[in-house]
Amino acid sequence: MTELKNDRFLRALLREPVDVTPVWMMRQAGRYLPEYKVTRAQAGDFMSLCMNPELACEVTIQPLKRFPLDAAILFSDILTIPDAMDLGLYFETGEGPRFKKPVRTEADVEALPVPDPNGKLDYVMQAVKTIRHELNGRVPLIGFSGSPWTLATYMVEGGSSKDFRRVKEMMYSQPQVLHQLLDKLAQSVTSYLNAQIAAGAQAVQIFDTWGGVLSPACYREFSLNYMSRIVAGLTRENEGRRVPVILFTKNGGQWIEQIADAGADCVGLDWTIDISEARQRIGNRVALQGNMDPSVLYASPAKIREEVSRILEQYGTGAGHVFNLGHGIHQFVNPDHAAVFVEAIHELSAPYHQ
Amino acid sequence: MTELKNDRFLRALLREPVDVTPVWMMRQAGRYLPEYKVTRAQAGDFMSLCMNPELACEVTIQPLKRFPLDAAILFSDILTIPDAMDLGLYFETGEGPRFKKPVRTEADVEALPVPDPNGKLDYVMQAVKTIRHELNGRVPLIGFSGSPWTLATYMVEGGSSKDFRRVKEMMYSQPQVLHQLLDKLAQSVTSYLNAQIAAGAQAVQIFDTWGGVLSPACYREFSLNYMSRIVAGLTRENEGRRVPVILFTKNGGQWIEQIADAGADCVGLDWTIDISEARQRIGNRVALQGNMDPSVLYASPAKIREEVSRILEQYGTGAGHVFNLGHGIHQFVNPDHAAVFVEAIHELSAPYHQ
Repeated sequence: MTELKNDRFLRALLREPVDVTPVWMMRQAGRYLPEYKVTRAQAGDFMSLCMNPELACEVTIQPLKRFPLDAAILFSDILTIPDAMDLGLYFETGEGPRFKKPVRTEADVEALPVPDPNGKLDYVMQAVKTIRHELNGRVPLIGFSGSPWTLATYMVEGGSSKDFRRVKEMMYSQPQVLHQLLDKLAQSVTSYLNAQIAAGAQAVQIFDTWGGVLSPACYREFSLNYMSRIVAGLTRENEGRRVPVILFTKNGGQWIEQIADAGADCVGLDWTIDISEARQRIGNRVALQGNMDPSVLYASPAKIREEVSRILEQYGTGAGHVFNLGHGIHQFVNPDHAAVFVEAIHELSAPYHQ
Repeated sequence: MTELKNDRFLRALLREPVDVTPVWMMRQAGRYLPEYKVTRAQAGDFMSLCMNPELACEVTIQPLKRFPLDAAILFSDILTIPDAMDLGLYFETGEGPRFKKPVRTEADVEALPVPDPNGKLDYVMQAVKTIRHELNGRVPLIGFSGSPWTLATYMVEGGSSKDFRRVKEMMYSQPQVLHQLLDKLAQSVTSYLNAQIAAGAQAVQIFDTWGGVLSPACYREFSLNYMSRIVAGLTRENEGRRVPVILFTKNGGQWIEQIADAGADCVGLDWTIDISEARQRIGNRVALQGNMDPSVLYASPAKIREEVSRILEQYGTGAGHVFNLGHGIHQFVNPDHAAVFVEAIHELSAPYHQ
């Protein structure tokens, strides 16, 4: 394999010294970039873009051409696994993802296959390989998956939800059915991420977008428990390097100690917690990723620099910080503001690493 | 005034001894009740129901006829103040509230009137008086308002929002304009709640539905700060009794110490925090209200009782607990399950008050 020219991101995840704080942005390949919209239009619908390794590679690389980012992230969707389970994923304009066959009963759960990552999901592995080749060692490539709980919410609700009525009804009324579903999803996510790692992903992140809608006890039982199992089953070394794992639970600020103990290398933070408090509570057990409110990118360059500076100061000196937004970059952000953000991090963080 | 026959709710808010833990449910007068739907249909649209004191009284009383609740809450909407500011509130089916004239500029903010609670909002005061008369001392009546930040989100966005793009853009780019708006709203909410108290509200709750989408620093500056100012301006005694104030920030679990220090008598909790942890962190400074996940009401009566029992045990012995859901009751809940919930609290809490 080609030698990695910029390994700041991987080093920071392992709390090793770096010259400046590395940065990437969740959803950095996306609708805020005009060039993304061009490729997206060329692909047709959203899943066709995900399923075309050449085009997925193209949009993965696009933000790296504009900004000095320290990592690339595979362009894909969190719903590839349920899609490969034949639930009939489709996207309704303005409505988000939908499933033709939601999962509602024990029989539905039993009928679900655990997809072979090198079968129906092989397009993802082809995209990983294509991107690695195209990156040519410039920066590391991040693979990812949705968490079992987050995937289950979409599968049971049949799409996005505001109140999670059906999945919570299942959780409180038929917990054993939900556990069976989550178990199948944990198996699927483990083999899916291991296949991404085998194909060339140099770090992986598990997105638990909806863990924060649970009570503390339910979060442990129905979300963190399964993420922890996945982490235990992952290939942690490849190409002679550690493959770090990041766990990100949106609205999980109250539970970061428990997340830090789940076996991963890094806890992703949204913006509802001060990173100084997070570091104090977690100590140096794991690295921290985050945590600027993505909406700051609507403000002036001066304000963006001010917020970057504040977060760098809050984290303080020493290794173990990967800068990021606290959630995906919004579609209406001016790309020039993303440039200010990325450059400010590199420029303003140097003093913290001397 | 008629003597209050059941004052458990008021006593618990002041951390005074009670025989059993009092309970009410956020949105207890609402769409999950068939009789509500009948009255709603009779009224025409939603705001017509709010604006008709007789019908608002009728739906306020409806849940009390079914369940032995320990408080009534004024039936109204959190957007009555912006509506009285002439922003053209209307409700689009399935879309939630909308404003014809959203507030976007400094000029928009300057043009906003501070509504006279006994002028355009007099229908609310008439409803309070009508309900008090109808309650005839059975249980206390709660008045309420949205928090300035929460009202501002609707006014600036022009309705509900997922990403709070425009209000956050204002917050980060033109904070002085947002402060001017919040200042006007804090004045309006203060006089609105004081008028409700004068009309007969025996406790008031401020609903900060959207404080949890802010960073810790922004929450303090743009939400808590204004709630604290309101609390300082409220009439705290009426009819020879203390008028307790409850602050409820959804997704505010990370900031409960600060909320507890804002001058109110009680902190409302959603279900993402263990009430045992909340009590430990806050001590006996204020009472706590909450905090069962409303989705538990989709489960079996046995499971509902189990969850009630768990929360009672978590709070432990001694005064200062008002039982509630962690958010409004869902529209698809079976009313019989709400009955199980309310009865379980009275039945199972007695040992904690001996």
